[in-house]
Amino acid sequence: MKRWIAGVLCAAGMMVTGMADAQDLMVEKKVFDLPSFTTQSGRTLKNVKVGWESYGTLNADKSNAVLICHFFSGNSHAAGKYEAADAAPGYWDAIIGPGKAIDTNKYFVLASDTLVNLNTGDPKTTTTGPASIDPDTGKPYALDFPVVTVGDFVNVQKALVESLGIRKLALVAGPSMGALQTYEWAASHPEMVAKAMPVIGAAEADAQLIAWLDVWAAPILVDQNWNKGDYYGRTPPNAGLAKALAVVTLQANHAEWANATFGRRPAKPDEAPAKALGNRFQIQSILDNAGEARAKVSDANHFLYLIKANQLYAAGGTSLADAATKIKAPVLLITQPKDLVFTADMIEHTADTLRKGGVNVTQAFIQGTRGHLDGVISMKQAEGAIRAFLEK
Amino acid sequence: MKRWIAGVLCAAGMMVTGMADAQDLMVEKKVFDLPSFTTQSGRTLKNVKVGWESYGTLNADKSNAVLICHFFSGNSHAAGKYEAADAAPGYWDAIIGPGKAIDTNKYFVLASDTLVNLNTGDPKTTTTGPASIDPDTGKPYALDFPVVTVGDFVNVQKALVESLGIRKLALVAGPSMGALQTYEWAASHPEMVAKAMPVIGAAEADAQLIAWLDVWAAPILVDQNWNKGDYYGRTPPNAGLAKALAVVTLQANHAEWANATFGRRPAKPDEAPAKALGNRFQIQSILDNAGEARAKVSDANHFLYLIKANQLYAAGGTSLADAATKIKAPVLLITQPKDLVFTADMIEHTADTLRKGGVNVTQAFIQGTRGHLDGVISMKQAEGAIRAFLEK
Repeated sequence: MKRWIAGVLCAAGMMVTGMADAQDLMVEKKVFDLPSFTTQSGRTLKNVKVGWESYGTLNADKSNAVLICHFFSGNSHAAGKYEAADAAPGYWDAIIGPGKAIDTNKYFVLASDTLVNLNTGDPKTTTTGPASIDPDTGKPYALDFPVVTVGDFVNVQKALVESLGIRKLALVAGPSMGALQTYEWAASHPEMVAKAMPVIGAAEADAQLIAWLDVWAAPILVDQNWNKGDYYGRTPPNAGLAKALAVVTLQANHAEWANATFGRRPAKPDEAPAKALGNRFQIQSILDNAGEARAKVSDANHFLYLIKANQLYAAGGTSLADAATKIKAPVLLITQPKDLVFTADMIEHTADTLRKGGVNVTQAFIQGTRGHLDGVISMKQAEGAIRAFLEK
Repeated sequence: MKRWIAGVLCAAGMMVTGMADAQDLMVEKKVFDLPSFTTQSGRTLKNVKVGWESYGTLNADKSNAVLICHFFSGNSHAAGKYEAADAAPGYWDAIIGPGKAIDTNKYFVLASDTLVNLNTGDPKTTTTGPASIDPDTGKPYALDFPVVTVGDFVNVQKALVESLGIRKLALVAGPSMGALQTYEWAASHPEMVAKAMPVIGAAEADAQLIAWLDVWAAPILVDQNWNKGDYYGRTPPNAGLAKALAVVTLQANHAEWANATFGRRPAKPDEAPAKALGNRFQIQSILDNAGEARAKVSDANHFLYLIKANQLYAAGGTSLADAATKIKAPVLLITQPKDLVFTADMIEHTADTLRKGGVNVTQAFIQGTRGHLDGVISMKQAEGAIRAFLEK
């Protein structure tokens, strides 16, 4: 994801933030194996694997662990670099590291790849999903993979956390789908979560979000190469997946950025958009190119399973109102009012409902021209709020 | 379009407004023939035909004509009924008719289908576009049809208006793409427009709108049956077109409607969305079904040409700022602040820029839970503003 954002940003003549630290945190990607995992739908999967990484040192009584949960198209790489030459550090490097808001001199920060992670073609991502080999058949699961939920993502993380001897997390946090996992942790495992910091995310998918997620999925479902999910060893539905990823990029940004960056400039000065149906404006080619590049290292079925998990989502597995009675941790909710994915109305509905249920909710807001994406790339703005929340 | 909206609304347990009038305006659909029409791109087309209809009577000095321009997926049927048994009248019947805000006892109101109109399978729509037979080849134009613009739509209307001997329009008005045509009339033919009433539309497509229109088009482009536009006589890309139309429906509505109407109810009570990848929530099936029904009477290439015309759009053919110096008519701009297609930011940018250019702009706002669509179905709210504007 980092490379993807970097790609779109560099194309737009901008730089990724958070690259100024003289001493980068160096990180190693690891793999967590679960010999057996039973999904909330009741299917038992063998040999479940997810990638993970950590920053800082777990203390003797294992009380300083912080879990970071990733967004829809992300992976565990929340901070630091794998190699000094990496173009950019992890996505929340601005707030995770030595002396930073989530201080790795104090906290042991860990993050894992989810089930059905999108980035199947990225050597630094390890996941289990439709593209994985089913040990029982020796072939990819494809659509025989069970529907999985955000609750399943969290239960895999819980097994990882427990394997390290950690019984309570000082903080669970994450942006977007990471926020969904954060609420889920706090509602389903309240005894294990001291504090929760959901960022740019609501605690339940409403009808509007469910429908928009269908818009993201539509180009894949229409692509005949999708073939009802049976495309492994054949031509994958990358035309559909590329368009799907272009939609995600657009909705994760905001008009202020699009208009200021691209305006009505043509993609190519000598190919005026009015001259031919296929001649494009710059914003069209930028989004298409980013989608096509990303599709090459992503899996269409994983995309659809992620969509499904997000559509099914209600914190705690039942409803937002129910979750509000289960969550015990104080919540720092950080959002961007211009967010086009989790709109201000959705966020206020979550905050109000949690408060009515007795949850201690503090809100902080990020500004910027990127909308949803500001919750990933502009998090340095929130460092004061995060420090205050952790010190409380 | 009326039937489409009615379909979505009835599915949602709601009724179309404007059906209470004891005496319906009865309307006849007619066809306007242009033996030759040269597009702004320089192509001359033979035998251009568009449908049109009118309400009220043209007065002796032909000074009482009002032109209504239709939205993206609409046609000329702005008011009245073709037959008494019609399920619903034209889309703006609430404001057009005897004694209504646009009073057909006083005004001669006319409306035409645009070029590349979407509704090629509707017997009440007549249009010329990629699905039409090219007289030179005897085959459908397909992608050999030239790119057409909103300026071309207006120039065809101008030929129709002039064929009736009308030299100046008392009012040009329309919602959404109809607003685009309204600004275009006022900027390109200022001597022919006494007053202009754009509704739920801005006077220029910005980068953000250009990109969102690509989201609408994406499912068609990905559908292999689209076959680069060459599908006449074969299987049309209706899977893609249906998804495209579902996206339009969603963006033309608002979260308040979606959430209040559908919530998280499953499409079928015995097929829980969590149980299978294909099990849907109600909002998913409602949008998909509406898209599929509509696709059967629509043409995918026409959809893409409409997208292109909207992406290319800047009032007067150059830019909003330039249009602001050309428009002489006073403007009544009616919008819905919750509109997700033409957002409040876009509308304010248009209003501000027109005013800076010296245009007399009055703004009025419609409320409701439908967002963009309120500019079609909730127009009765604006009748006071419209009457005042026409009487000035």
